[in-house]
Amino acid sequence: MKAFYRNFKLGIIGGGQLGRMLLQACPNYNLYTRVLDPSKDGPCKGLANEYVQGSLQDYATVYAFGKQVDLLTIEIENVNIDALYQLETEGIEIYPQPRVIEIIQDKRIQKQFYLDQDIPTAEFVLVNNRKDVEAHTKFLPAYNKLGKGGYDGGGVVSLRTINDIDKAFDDPGVLEKTVDVDAEISVIAARNALGEIRIFPPVECVFNPNFNLVDYLIAPSLLPKDIQQEAERLARKLTKSLEIVGLLAVEMFVTKGGEILVNEVAPRPHNSGHQTINANDTSQYEQHLRAILGLPLGSTKINTPSAMVNLLGEEGYTGPAVYEGLDELLEIEGSNIFLYGKEITKPHRKMGHVTILNNDTHALKEHVRLVKKVIRVIS
Amino acid sequence: MKAFYRNFKLGIIGGGQLGRMLLQACPNYNLYTRVLDPSKDGPCKGLANEYVQGSLQDYATVYAFGKQVDLLTIEIENVNIDALYQLETEGIEIYPQPRVIEIIQDKRIQKQFYLDQDIPTAEFVLVNNRKDVEAHTKFLPAYNKLGKGGYDGGGVVSLRTINDIDKAFDDPGVLEKTVDVDAEISVIAARNALGEIRIFPPVECVFNPNFNLVDYLIAPSLLPKDIQQEAERLARKLTKSLEIVGLLAVEMFVTKGGEILVNEVAPRPHNSGHQTINANDTSQYEQHLRAILGLPLGSTKINTPSAMVNLLGEEGYTGPAVYEGLDELLEIEGSNIFLYGKEITKPHRKMGHVTILNNDTHALKEHVRLVKKVIRVIS
Repeated sequence: MKAFYRNFKLGIIGGGQLGRMLLQACPNYNLYTRVLDPSKDGPCKGLANEYVQGSLQDYATVYAFGKQVDLLTIEIENVNIDALYQLETEGIEIYPQPRVIEIIQDKRIQKQFYLDQDIPTAEFVLVNNRKDVEAHTKFLPAYNKLGKGGYDGGGVVSLRTINDIDKAFDDPGVLEKTVDVDAEISVIAARNALGEIRIFPPVECVFNPNFNLVDYLIAPSLLPKDIQQEAERLARKLTKSLEIVGLLAVEMFVTKGGEILVNEVAPRPHNSGHQTINANDTSQYEQHLRAILGLPLGSTKINTPSAMVNLLGEEGYTGPAVYEGLDELLEIEGSNIFLYGKEITKPHRKMGHVTILNNDTHALKEHVRLVKKVIRVIS
Repeated sequence: MKAFYRNFKLGIIGGGQLGRMLLQACPNYNLYTRVLDPSKDGPCKGLANEYVQGSLQDYATVYAFGKQVDLLTIEIENVNIDALYQLETEGIEIYPQPRVIEIIQDKRIQKQFYLDQDIPTAEFVLVNNRKDVEAHTKFLPAYNKLGKGGYDGGGVVSLRTINDIDKAFDDPGVLEKTVDVDAEISVIAARNALGEIRIFPPVECVFNPNFNLVDYLIAPSLLPKDIQQEAERLARKLTKSLEIVGLLAVEMFVTKGGEILVNEVAPRPHNSGHQTINANDTSQYEQHLRAILGLPLGSTKINTPSAMVNLLGEEGYTGPAVYEGLDELLEIEGSNIFLYGKEITKPHRKMGHVTILNNDTHALKEHVRLVKKVIRVIS
C-alpha cells in the first residue's frame, strides 16, 4: 500500500505528449512526479514537480534519475536498458519491467517473440544492413524497419521494388512482407502486478499513407464482432505471455483475407488511446497508473463513440506554432482539444490532437473531415 | 486570438482543489500558469508553473500577483476586490469581472441582486450583528449566513429557536427563512465575452445535514422535466443579468410546494460540477477556460449518468491523511478517484472525491452507499 501523499515519487522516462497526459492524471493519486527528457523544454516542462534534462540513452543519466524515485515508468521505450536492469537489481520498482522493455525496444526481438508465442504476424527476415536487404529482394514488396529507435513514423521505409533498395537502412532491422491490409486496429490492454488484465475495446486507425502516422481513429471499431473478439484475444494472450505490468498497446492489421496479424506493440500509453480520456469509464493514463501502482484496474467501457484526430504540423512551415482555425474547431459539437506544448512546428510533427464525441458514427466521420478542414498548425 | 504557446500567462487566485482540477485542464491550451494561495503547500503546489504563497485579502499581494499575468481568474471569490479593480483599470483582463465578484462575494449584496432582478429566493433580512438577529426572532427557524468569507460549509448556522441565538454571528450577514426543502439542485452555466451561454444539465445534491456540505450528487437530476427546465431558465437569467464571463454555479432549493428558490451562486468551477470531467462532452474546468479565453463554449451534454461523492476527513482524526479502503473503492465499476493533495486530514475536510459512472441509476445509488462504506480518510 502506497502512502498516497506527495512524498511518493513517480519517475517518468520521456517527457513527450504521452508523459504530458500521464502527468495530467497524476494529481488524482497525489503523486510527486519527476520527468527525464532530452529536450530543454519538452511537453512535460512545467507540469512535473521536477523536470530533468538528460539523455535517455546514457547509462549514468538514467541510473542517477532512477535512484531518486520510488517507482519508475516510461512513456517511450527507447531508453538505456542496462541502467534499468541495474536500478531493478538495486530495488527500484520499474513498470513495465526492463525485461519487457528489452523485448519490445528491438523490433527484431519483438518479432521473434511473436513467433515463439505463436502470435500471428507478417512474415519477416532479420537483416543486419542494406546488403542483407539486397539479398532478400524476392521478399519485396516489404517494409524495412529499424530494430531500435523508430518513433512517430520514423524508422520505417516501404520498399516496393528493387529500385527502392537504396532507401533501405544500413542498420540491424527486419524486412517484413507487405500484407494486403484491409484495416488497422489497435487494442490497449492493462495488467497489474496481481495479474489482473483489462482490455480496452478495439479502435480502428486510419493511417496517413504518406508519413506512416495515425491520421484519425474511430472508437469503437466498426469491424465485425468476431474480428474484434479475436483482436482482444490476441492482446490478452500477448499481455499474459509478456507478464507485463502496465499498459500494452497492440497494433494489428486485418488482412483482406480476414486474418489478424500483430504489427507491433508498445509497453506504455499509446496514440490510439487518447480518446479514452473523454470517452471511457477509465482513461488509458489513469489505467496505466492503476496498473503500475498495484491498484485494481478500472472499467474500460466506452460511454460514447468518439473520433481522435492527430494535429500534425502543416507541410511547408517550420517555426513557432500558430493554431489557425481553433475557434471553428471548438465550435464542432463534442470537440475537445489537446495541445502538446511544443513551441516549434515542423512538417508532420504531432502538435496536438482533437477528440470528438458523438453518438452518431456518421456525424463523427463528418466531424473528422471538418476538423481536418478547419485547423492548420502553421508558423 | 491568444498565441496559444506557453508564453500566455494565466493567473489563478486561490490554490485549492478547484484550482487543482482547473490546472489539470490548462495544458490542453498550452497555458503558462501562476497560482496565488495563502498556504505554503496547497493542492496546487507543484502543479502550476509558479506557485506564490500570499494572502488573497492583501491588496499589495493580489495586485503584485495580477501584474505578472495576462489573464486573471479565481477559484475562490474571497479575494481583495480593490486590487482586482485596480488591475482591471491598468488593463489586466480579469474573468469573472471584479464587478461580478463583488456582488457575489458578499451574500448581502448577492441576495439584494436577486430581489432587484426578480429572481426567486428565500425570504431574508440583512443583519449587522447578533443583536440584529435577536430583533428578528419571529423570522425563525432561519439560517444566519455571514456576508463575507463563508466557504465549504463554514459561515452558516441554523437557528431553529430563540435558544440557538447565541450561535448567531456577530458580524454583517443575512438571516434567511428556513424553507421546506424537497430537493437541492445545482446548475452550472457558462458565458463567454461574446455573450454565448451554455448550461450544464441540473444535478441533484444530497447534503450532509450535519456539516452543510454536499454529501453526494446524482447527474442528471431525476426531478420532473418542468422543474429542470425552470432551473435552467433561472440559471440562464442570472448569467445574463450578471453578464458574467466564466462559470456561474447556481445552487437552488426545490420546495415541497414545487417552487424553485435560488440559494446562492458561485462565479467559478463548483463542487457540483466535478463529475463533468468524466461524464460530459466538456468538463466544467475546460468550459471555464473556454469562457475566459474568449473561445466558443463546449457542449454540456451528459454521456453517462454519474454520481459524485465527496471524501471528507473522518471525525476523530487529525493528522497526515491515510486513505483506508482505496482498493475496495477502485474495484467498484466505473469509479474514478480524485485526491486533493492535502497532507493533513481534519474532521469534515474535503480530501478528495469519487466519481462513479453507470447507466443504471439504481446501481449508481448502490455504489454511492458502497463508496461511503469502504473508504475512510483517517490519520
